[in-house]
Amino acid sequence: MNKDKVVLAYSGGLDTSVILTWLKETYDMEVIAVCVDVGQKDDFEAVKKKAMETGAIKAYVVDVKEEFVQDYLFQGIKSGAIYEEDYLMGTAYARPLIAKKLVEVAELEGAVAIAHGATGKGNDQVRFEAGIKALNPRLKIIAPWRFWSLKSREDCIDYAIEHGIPIPVTKKDIYSRDENVWHLSHEGGNLENPWNEHDPSIYKLTVQPEKAPDAPTFVTIGFEEGVPVSLNGVKKGGLDLVLELNEIAGANGVGLIDIVENRLVGMKSRGVYETPAGTVLYQAHKGLEKLVLDRATMSFKRTVAARYSELVYDGLLFSPLKLALDAFINETQKVVTGEVKVKLYKGNCMVVASKSDFTLYDERYVTFGADDVYNQQDAEGFINLFTLSLKIGAIKRLEAEEAGKLEHEDKGEIVFV
Amino acid sequence: MNKDKVVLAYSGGLDTSVILTWLKETYDMEVIAVCVDVGQKDDFEAVKKKAMETGAIKAYVVDVKEEFVQDYLFQGIKSGAIYEEDYLMGTAYARPLIAKKLVEVAELEGAVAIAHGATGKGNDQVRFEAGIKALNPRLKIIAPWRFWSLKSREDCIDYAIEHGIPIPVTKKDIYSRDENVWHLSHEGGNLENPWNEHDPSIYKLTVQPEKAPDAPTFVTIGFEEGVPVSLNGVKKGGLDLVLELNEIAGANGVGLIDIVENRLVGMKSRGVYETPAGTVLYQAHKGLEKLVLDRATMSFKRTVAARYSELVYDGLLFSPLKLALDAFINETQKVVTGEVKVKLYKGNCMVVASKSDFTLYDERYVTFGADDVYNQQDAEGFINLFTLSLKIGAIKRLEAEEAGKLEHEDKGEIVFV
Amino acid sequence: MNKDKVVLAYSGGLDTSVILTWLKETYDMEVIAVCVDVGQKDDFEAVKKKAMETGAIKAYVVDVKEEFVQDYLFQGIKSGAIYEEDYLMGTAYARPLIAKKLVEVAELEGAVAIAHGATGKGNDQVRFEAGIKALNPRLKIIAPWRFWSLKSREDCIDYAIEHGIPIPVTKKDIYSRDENVWHLSHEGGNLENPWNEHDPSIYKLTVQPEKAPDAPTFVTIGFEEGVPVSLNGVKKGGLDLVLELNEIAGANGVGLIDIVENRLVGMKSRGVYETPAGTVLYQAHKGLEKLVLDRATMSFKRTVAARYSELVYDGLLFSPLKLALDAFINETQKVVTGEVKVKLYKGNCMVVASKSDFTLYDERYVTFGADDVYNQQDAEGFINLFTLSLKIGAIKRLEAEEAGKLEHEDKGEIVFV
Amino acid sequence: MNKDKVVLAYSGGLDTSVILTWLKETYDMEVIAVCVDVGQKDDFEAVKKKAMETGAIKAYVVDVKEEFVQDYLFQGIKSGAIYEEDYLMGTAYARPLIAKKLVEVAELEGAVAIAHGATGKGNDQVRFEAGIKALNPRLKIIAPWRFWSLKSREDCIDYAIEHGIPIPVTKKDIYSRDENVWHLSHEGGNLENPWNEHDPSIYKLTVQPEKAPDAPTFVTIGFEEGVPVSLNGVKKGGLDLVLELNEIAGANGVGLIDIVENRLVGMKSRGVYETPAGTVLYQAHKGLEKLVLDRATMSFKRTVAARYSELVYDGLLFSPLKLALDAFINETQKVVTGEVKVKLYKGNCMVVASKSDFTLYDERYVTFGADDVYNQQDAEGFINLFTLSLKIGAIKRLEAEEAGKLEHEDKGEIVFV
Repeated sequence: MNKDKVVLAYSGGLDTSVILTWLKETYDMEVIAVCVDVGQKDDFEAVKKKAMETGAIKAYVVDVKEEFVQDYLFQGIKSGAIYEEDYLMGTAYARPLIAKKLVEVAELEGAVAIAHGATGKGNDQVRFEAGIKALNPRLKIIAPWRFWSLKSREDCIDYAIEHGIPIPVTKKDIYSRDENVWHLSHEGGNLENPWNEHDPSIYKLTVQPEKAPDAPTFVTIGFEEGVPVSLNGVKKGGLDLVLELNEIAGANGVGLIDIVENRLVGMKSRGVYETPAGTVLYQAHKGLEKLVLDRATMSFKRTVAARYSELVYDGLLFSPLKLALDAFINETQKVVTGEVKVKLYKGNCMVVASKSDFTLYDERYVTFGADDVYNQQDAEGFINLFTLSLKIGAIKRLEAEEAGKLEHEDKGEIVFV
Repeated sequence: MNKDKVVLAYSGGLDTSVILTWLKETYDMEVIAVCVDVGQKDDFEAVKKKAMETGAIKAYVVDVKEEFVQDYLFQGIKSGAIYEEDYLMGTAYARPLIAKKLVEVAELEGAVAIAHGATGKGNDQVRFEAGIKALNPRLKIIAPWRFWSLKSREDCIDYAIEHGIPIPVTKKDIYSRDENVWHLSHEGGNLENPWNEHDPSIYKLTVQPEKAPDAPTFVTIGFEEGVPVSLNGVKKGGLDLVLELNEIAGANGVGLIDIVENRLVGMKSRGVYETPAGTVLYQAHKGLEKLVLDRATMSFKRTVAARYSELVYDGLLFSPLKLALDAFINETQKVVTGEVKVKLYKGNCMVVASKSDFTLYDERYVTFGADDVYNQQDAEGFINLFTLSLKIGAIKRLEAEEAGKLEHEDKGEIVFV
Repeated sequence: MNKDKVVLAYSGGLDTSVILTWLKETYDMEVIAVCVDVGQKDDFEAVKKKAMETGAIKAYVVDVKEEFVQDYLFQGIKSGAIYEEDYLMGTAYARPLIAKKLVEVAELEGAVAIAHGATGKGNDQVRFEAGIKALNPRLKIIAPWRFWSLKSREDCIDYAIEHGIPIPVTKKDIYSRDENVWHLSHEGGNLENPWNEHDPSIYKLTVQPEKAPDAPTFVTIGFEEGVPVSLNGVKKGGLDLVLELNEIAGANGVGLIDIVENRLVGMKSRGVYETPAGTVLYQAHKGLEKLVLDRATMSFKRTVAARYSELVYDGLLFSPLKLALDAFINETQKVVTGEVKVKLYKGNCMVVASKSDFTLYDERYVTFGADDVYNQQDAEGFINLFTLSLKIGAIKRLEAEEAGKLEHEDKGEIVFV
Repeated sequence: MNKDKVVLAYSGGLDTSVILTWLKETYDMEVIAVCVDVGQKDDFEAVKKKAMETGAIKAYVVDVKEEFVQDYLFQGIKSGAIYEEDYLMGTAYARPLIAKKLVEVAELEGAVAIAHGATGKGNDQVRFEAGIKALNPRLKIIAPWRFWSLKSREDCIDYAIEHGIPIPVTKKDIYSRDENVWHLSHEGGNLENPWNEHDPSIYKLTVQPEKAPDAPTFVTIGFEEGVPVSLNGVKKGGLDLVLELNEIAGANGVGLIDIVENRLVGMKSRGVYETPAGTVLYQAHKGLEKLVLDRATMSFKRTVAARYSELVYDGLLFSPLKLALDAFINETQKVVTGEVKVKLYKGNCMVVASKSDFTLYDERYVTFGADDVYNQQDAEGFINLFTLSLKIGAIKRLEAEEAGKLEHEDKGEIVFV
């Protein structure tokens, strides 16, 4: 009889190599190692080779970079979603897509379970598992860190030595990192005390602002229905655009944040994130929306963006609410077509100019002086009705005071000069 | 019989000098000129003198700078309100306070009307009048720009010459500006085409980032219940703190934005704003909140802040909703006590460290490895229930597909490397 | 040379007949009378005839009832929008559709203006004009009530007599009413004092609950993607379904409300509304959504519904935000397919049973006792993480109290029995 | 050495009697039985006696009815919070208060743990435990149903027989019920299929509407700052008011709902709730708010109420966000003083009249005809600016169509009659 198969989210690192061995030992299942390429800088051939040597029956590398950029990151741009007003969620967008690929391979291979190496303290376990459950609720999920006996990196090393798993010779980084085409995150080490300043030497995608060029760089981003489609006037595919912009923005020290954030699982953590292209694209997209969206749409979209950021952060990319918010967002983007010029300078990223065929900005309305499109007398009527309930309330209060039903509230002192 | 009195919001400039004369001529009323000092750099003695010379029966200068900072700007800091995600609303906070002082003087003097020089195209007319109506609904409001025959600066000059009003000899600035202790705004001129880049030579409070010092400046802000109370460890009154921080942040090129915004009156306009201290205080306050507020509170406060920003922008500072949101905000601030260190460097403003007695950040929960406060196995139960409806939905969909009631949706292609 | 043409929203009543004559007299334009049939009970041939007799060059009656039900009212059902938690907005949905037809006729006829008989105090002027401006911003709008010299019904009668306009012989109703296929509204008369109870004799679509049958009536509504498609198991077109359900629900006294509401123009008004079918369909639709929507979607949809209700009430049906919310709503409705049984009894309307292929209700999860789909131990982990920040906050507070940094708050008294 | 003590939430029923015994057996702890009187109809002396007989070392009954009404239920009235638009949350308000009393007794007695009998499937476990953790995070929590070996009522009976615990002789109700001064809930039995209609014979607080009196009953509720203070003109304490109103409303068949709801733990359940007084008080309070709150406040309060309902439902009554929302709510209630008349008739509950010194309703503004407080011409300016961005958008679209940049969208057909 055939053994059951389990698909393992495999990176080639120590942890997932140990898990690979542990799965075989613990469950007597065949392990299919799947490494999803979201843009981390890895030697994927070596990863596949190591998986097979460690005992996988198959090893796949799946390239999702273009899908990642177009369907996940650019949808995020269109949404304007920023978690807790700062975090562009590079890791959060990647996890459900990885889960999707794990499910697809599991279905292709007839596997009964998916295993991952996320710990029991973080958000990524939720993002992986929410994705898996939404896409194939019948797959079993195995998350060894939550219940096995290994409790630390040292335990893993001991286990590896015991089981003949090759151990990386490089000194273990004191930071926990996650990298993809969108960002690089840093957690752990001395960051765990929020009163410590982070050390700029940790940056990998971004030059320290102090070391960036002394002259600004200007880039022009073109958008079609909210999607970035050109860079400095040249049409680009999404992935190429992001990669190229990462270089330009990173070289100018753009895209760094250092924040304390609320994890979904109830604790706070502190991280440093580098998101060079993402930062520029968010700013540019927002600048264009300011030109073409009316006030009511911008205001409600802000509410949508806040909720969307929570859904993305929480790994609920395949939830009904996410899809419904996407429909809202996509409808708003029909007019978000135009160009935005951004100045990059030693960490600054500032929109300096914008234009669009759908602009609602109209010089004729704004210019001081005689005009025929806007009648200034309209403003009196507008103000009178806009503030009518305020005025009625004030009259009622006054009348109540005069009738002795309310005490008069004093307005305070006047300080004459 | 005594003539009726009108209180005029008087600046000493050409427009309000013309209005002063025009009021007397048009209504046969006595004019009381009131200049409210919110931090604009003016020779107030000269302003008073000019008012009297132009025909006012009285001229007052009212100093509201300390009240402005404590009750208006710092309340804004506590709220986190940012209009359309960028604008810190320096003008918007000032107008209702000016209205309040005009009302107080009108009541003191027994005036029957208040006149102001805001045009019919902008937000300020709404802010003045909403304030006046909320505080004294019986006062008549006179806004000459909306209905008199003068249509331009040239018309004003002609009128001034005709009526012997002294005309400022300085060349008219091509920009329309508003200044106070919090910010300086620039509108008009070549800014009226959003595809034009603004000229850095317009900056007055802020050094162009390229010309700021080559080494960063670090400042530490102390907060008590959300209110800034110290700078670099030294206790400061609000006004002093803001003035000093304006110098420091301005010298580092911090606080510049260039945006297109939706005016309340339905049109878009474009402006450049300098808000050095404000920018630093918002960032620092947000950094501290990230340490002490739980996720649910932060999330809802974001909704409150967005609404609050609209109320402030629209001049509804004395409305019932504004007061109710204040109550919400103040309750959340009880734990926003602590210190935040901010790095200022050539336009950048980045929180680099934070601490508080009320921090919800707890290293023991975050650190990888064995712990006793957090049981990693809890995460499995959490995820199972957190995603339960997602899973049930997926099962129902699967069962419906298998029963032939729903068509199967394909998940897409896998791109193997 | 040809005269300019104006399209007049014409009802055949005194007011619009006077306006017809007044338009010709005042502007020297040709008047095209357009009566839009949204379900008001009128003799449309007589209306056309009267328009021609009063001086129109053409008179149209446009039947929009089916479009009204399918594209406006049922979209409202799907949205769940209820203005200020009570009002189903029968008038508000009709006005923009009427505006759309006026614009279409104006374009067909080459008219330069549209005139309407809404007063300057109500919402309908805004709804008409917002619709017209959104659909054809170049059309001039004429709203005589806002500026002509007639100030009352008596003035109108005088004007009519003077100009030979036939005056309806029926005694003028003391109430102001608006009727369509969805509802009948009553305003004015003794309703203008909110402390007066309304007189049940005003009801026209609805039987007074006390006079409804002593036995309940049960109806079953079938929905497909949120749209009502069947009544008691029989497929029905939208208009037929609403008309039939109006009879059934009206006969059972269902659909009455008596409310004070905030008009867009800043004042409050009081109205009695009869919406028999609408009330049943809202209840039934909500009952079905409770079965098929997950908690997060229901929660956010509630926010959308509240905003949507304001947009509809304010006449912004053709605004970008309305369209974007529609996209959200429609996406959520994909699973809102099923049947709901409703009990109608002397004014009560209660969902008593519901079913759907997409139900997320699953008996196996709920039933007390042994089960294999839900592991009760998961709840512990869930609760621990769901309340983790609450617990950390409590610990921090306790530690601060013990360190003397916070005063201990007493929990209060225990009252033992 | 002294044994550790555990406080048990004790009802006197089979389950908690079994738990009492099981606790002693399993943990070798002394059990203190605490029964909290929230208005359930019980013989509390008998409960205490039974607790002692079953092996408790102490048995307390704590009367919290007045506190429950004033601080929990009336705060809910002020908030307007209704869970998923229907449920008045009688159980949800009670659980945290019970938790509070359990904590107080635990602190009084020096107990180290609290045990409760809520199952692992429901909301109540979360509500108890969230309350306990917020008020005393150091207390251990024991929830036997989540992990002991008993899986059903039958297992409990077996256990009881084995351990000599007296078993209630009454036939077990097929429904699971929760009762307090505010409501009575019914779950389980044939309700577990949502397509089953519930049997009206289950009602206990409410007469079946069909059996209620043939003539309506009118009641007048007086409010002060949002709090119900009088009934039919007679001042009442909160508890008395609720008890008396329960009788009146219940006798008229008022307060029944039958809903499917989303539990916090991810599943849906179906319940029938009786909330006679609560239903009347919510309606009356809403009616009064409609008279005194301005539109902006009402609109935002609706958002607050929706969020508040989730916090209450989820048991987060002692969370920071709940307290901040309370501050908002209380500020809005300062003007919610007045009287509301409600008609109760065979299940209907309809506000028929309302008055307040703070009413924003003003007949002078509404009445058709000449007036001096409202200038109808203001409406034109209001509409022009209110719809300005809509108009600019339409112009831009038209110009883009005419320039060939956009395809013309057809408006559709006109159906002439």
